[in-house]
Amino acid sequence: MSDKQTGEDKALPSKEEFSDWYNEVIDRAELSDKRYQIKGMNVWRPYGWAIMRSIDEHIREEMEATDHDEVCFPLLIPETAFQKEAQHIKGFSDEVYWVRHAGANELDVPMLLRPTSETAMYPMFALWIRAHTDLPLKTFQLVNTFRYETKQTRAFIRVREIHFFESHTCHADFEDAERQIREDVEICRRFMRKLCLPYVLCKRPDWDKFAGAHYTVGIDAIMPSGRTLQLGSIHQYKTNFSKPYEVIYEDEDGEHKHVHQTTYGMSERLLGAVIAAHGDDKGMILPPSIAPKQVVMVPIIFKDSAEDVMAEIHAIKKELKDAGITATIDNRDMRPGAKYYHWELRGVPLRLELGARDMKKGVVTLARRDNGEKTEVPRQDIAKSVKDMLASIDEGIYERAQELLHSSIKEVEDTRDAGPGLNRMAWCGEESCGHQIEDDTEMAVLGTPWEPYEKDGNCIVCGKPTRTWIYVAKTY
Amino acid sequence: MSDKQTGEDKALPSKEEFSDWYNEVIDRAELSDKRYQIKGMNVWRPYGWAIMRSIDEHIREEMEATDHDEVCFPLLIPETAFQKEAQHIKGFSDEVYWVRHAGANELDVPMLLRPTSETAMYPMFALWIRAHTDLPLKTFQLVNTFRYETKQTRAFIRVREIHFFESHTCHADFEDAERQIREDVEICRRFMRKLCLPYVLCKRPDWDKFAGAHYTVGIDAIMPSGRTLQLGSIHQYKTNFSKPYEVIYEDEDGEHKHVHQTTYGMSERLLGAVIAAHGDDKGMILPPSIAPKQVVMVPIIFKDSAEDVMAEIHAIKKELKDAGITATIDNRDMRPGAKYYHWELRGVPLRLELGARDMKKGVVTLARRDNGEKTEVPRQDIAKSVKDMLASIDEGIYERAQELLHSSIKEVEDTRDAGPGLNRMAWCGEESCGHQIEDDTEMAVLGTPWEPYEKDGNCIVCGKPTRTWIYVAKTY
Repeated sequence: MSDKQTGEDKALPSKEEFSDWYNEVIDRAELSDKRYQIKGMNVWRPYGWAIMRSIDEHIREEMEATDHDEVCFPLLIPETAFQKEAQHIKGFSDEVYWVRHAGANELDVPMLLRPTSETAMYPMFALWIRAHTDLPLKTFQLVNTFRYETKQTRAFIRVREIHFFESHTCHADFEDAERQIREDVEICRRFMRKLCLPYVLCKRPDWDKFAGAHYTVGIDAIMPSGRTLQLGSIHQYKTNFSKPYEVIYEDEDGEHKHVHQTTYGMSERLLGAVIAAHGDDKGMILPPSIAPKQVVMVPIIFKDSAEDVMAEIHAIKKELKDAGITATIDNRDMRPGAKYYHWELRGVPLRLELGARDMKKGVVTLARRDNGEKTEVPRQDIAKSVKDMLASIDEGIYERAQELLHSSIKEVEDTRDAGPGLNRMAWCGEESCGHQIEDDTEMAVLGTPWEPYEKDGNCIVCGKPTRTWIYVAKTY
Repeated sequence: MSDKQTGEDKALPSKEEFSDWYNEVIDRAELSDKRYQIKGMNVWRPYGWAIMRSIDEHIREEMEATDHDEVCFPLLIPETAFQKEAQHIKGFSDEVYWVRHAGANELDVPMLLRPTSETAMYPMFALWIRAHTDLPLKTFQLVNTFRYETKQTRAFIRVREIHFFESHTCHADFEDAERQIREDVEICRRFMRKLCLPYVLCKRPDWDKFAGAHYTVGIDAIMPSGRTLQLGSIHQYKTNFSKPYEVIYEDEDGEHKHVHQTTYGMSERLLGAVIAAHGDDKGMILPPSIAPKQVVMVPIIFKDSAEDVMAEIHAIKKELKDAGITATIDNRDMRPGAKYYHWELRGVPLRLELGARDMKKGVVTLARRDNGEKTEVPRQDIAKSVKDMLASIDEGIYERAQELLHSSIKEVEDTRDAGPGLNRMAWCGEESCGHQIEDDTEMAVLGTPWEPYEKDGNCIVCGKPTRTWIYVAKTY
């Protein structure tokens, strides 16, 4: 597609202008096209979709390693099934899309597009589960979900058709469901490390838990704007859904009991966070683990050397491939500078340059996307050099993101001092004081950190002594 | 999940009772659950979804090898965009699901669930394509599509939410679009071979082409019932869509022209055909290329040998894995016969048995699913033996399916002789005679074979001399 359209001739806004920068990067790197005729429903373009699919593959790997089975449930949910859990329908009724007609007919039972799949799945779980030997049941799916957003939409962050991961599990008792939550926390830790994304885990306050949940753990990342972005959440449902949906099993003593349930969800916001956390004024910076191409190879060609250089480039590509490294050769007829610009924008972690002079010297030039460093390395053992450098880029990206998160945390003793980033405050635990904090700061209470954080303090509102601390932040 | 539910205690109906057999196999092998509360929208269970995902991966491989880019378009299409191509909307208006409400609001522009994505994609193609250098544009997606079926539904064969592959391409001229059709025919040939599925390619008669197409090529497989099943289709659109959607490019001389378009679609019917074509009275038989597990390993254990046998089983599993073969160990506490039954039903191509006696002899027993043959092979080089046997199973399955197809083709000179299978008839080319054939036989004209088939004959209806022959069959 023509470069004109992606506007590569104009300079990218500085990342300081985060909101503009974010939108422009997505446009120019051709990740997603928001010119589709329905606002908030965007087109996944090949490069954006390739990155998202890499992220999905890491999720699948984690799910497989923890014995979750992949399923795929229908998109449409009958209104009758949706209405069984009262809190849940209350939480979603304003934002569901309804299907009431097909062809020229009005349907007997209206259906809705899944905003999430509890109400599609649990009537089936009731059929699948008979006895304690069927437990735990651990399933997940990667699907499109729908929410009728009335707030302003933004690519990957607030959209109306959402690329969604959801795992749903059923357990014999509360303790086993709690074990699942701990497993989810571990999955989250391993998975987010692959994306080089640091995060905070908070148990949400009761007034902000998921519709129908017993409790909710939010996974929040910090964005360059100082706002947090919820990337996913883990929920303990207890028997809140298994009772209305009658998901019952027979225990070893022949007694019939309701299963305890958990869910774990994440969305395409993961990609939004990757762009936002790692990028710079030149565009995206992709962690090597999710880059569709980890290395772009640019031949530096003069007429008399073209054939030799290209032969060597192909030989190197093969060596990289054999070592499990994905590379692409850019042999378009344009000046190298324009190619550098093109691939830097798209966040390819490493650039490899090779010309006749390098060949004579027996070297190859590697340019890191994360810090711009250029290094000459020996042509021999090139796969090892590239592998090591990709590992070092991964470390570098992660450390930088961690610094951003850590430096954004500050402890405040007066709600008037709350600012961008994560504000840690002492809180007595009373809902009224929590709401007061939200009113005074115009921010949201993210909740209490999942990793125990306790020390003496006084509630920032009422002054009562407490050992409970919460994170408070502006959110997306 | 408990065996009670899958009814493994009752015998499977004979494959002679094809319709019952098909439904029972899908139920018992836990491929799909049709007890979901909306008829024709079924739940993909883990095993069925794993097979479908293997099939999808083969499609992706073919698309990547032919430079198609994977995209993902929104599910919802505004009515205004849908209505632009008159034939297309006429073809689909009776079977689309409408979204006219969200939350408590009525939407300004009604939207529909994609039955296929022309009308979602082409307004975007008009934005993406500027100049001849943007052509050809070759894209594809794997998505869920929706058709409000009023006929009786059947798992994988006739459903209302369809797992769908669709590729869409744009070209500078008719000849380049024709080249794409020939490439699609080659992709189809390679891909269907991986599924061990023989098929016939027919250019559909004009009255049965896709809504909006210039011409349509159908991909039909023969089912054991003697009916054909359309597994996919390839369409030449010419400029039928690019005109209403204004998909225009500037050629080398600065002239503005409409692109020529093609599409290629296939669906979850592929899985239905795999089950139907290859299975037998014991259940499914999966081609090794799409079996989620190619080998099931059954340890034959007596108390004193358990540890040794299990250690050896794990060693063999590792050797197989290193050779790129997927295997699963069934060490459930049940008699081997019940295990054999379980995995035969699920179509695992090869069973490997190992007991203490085999170990002493230095052998392993392999049992082929396709023909039931049991062979002792040396423990040494086990990965090579398994690999060779899987290749032989693949050949065996394909040959058997080919025989079924070839034996189902017969030439008839009187419409009263038309029977189950593919009936080859001479046809003058007049639409009225074509309709007469359909009325007389209560079958469908599949069209003229894509591979030229010409010889002298007389139209089966009017007797006029002709060199055109068509296939006529009962279809699903």
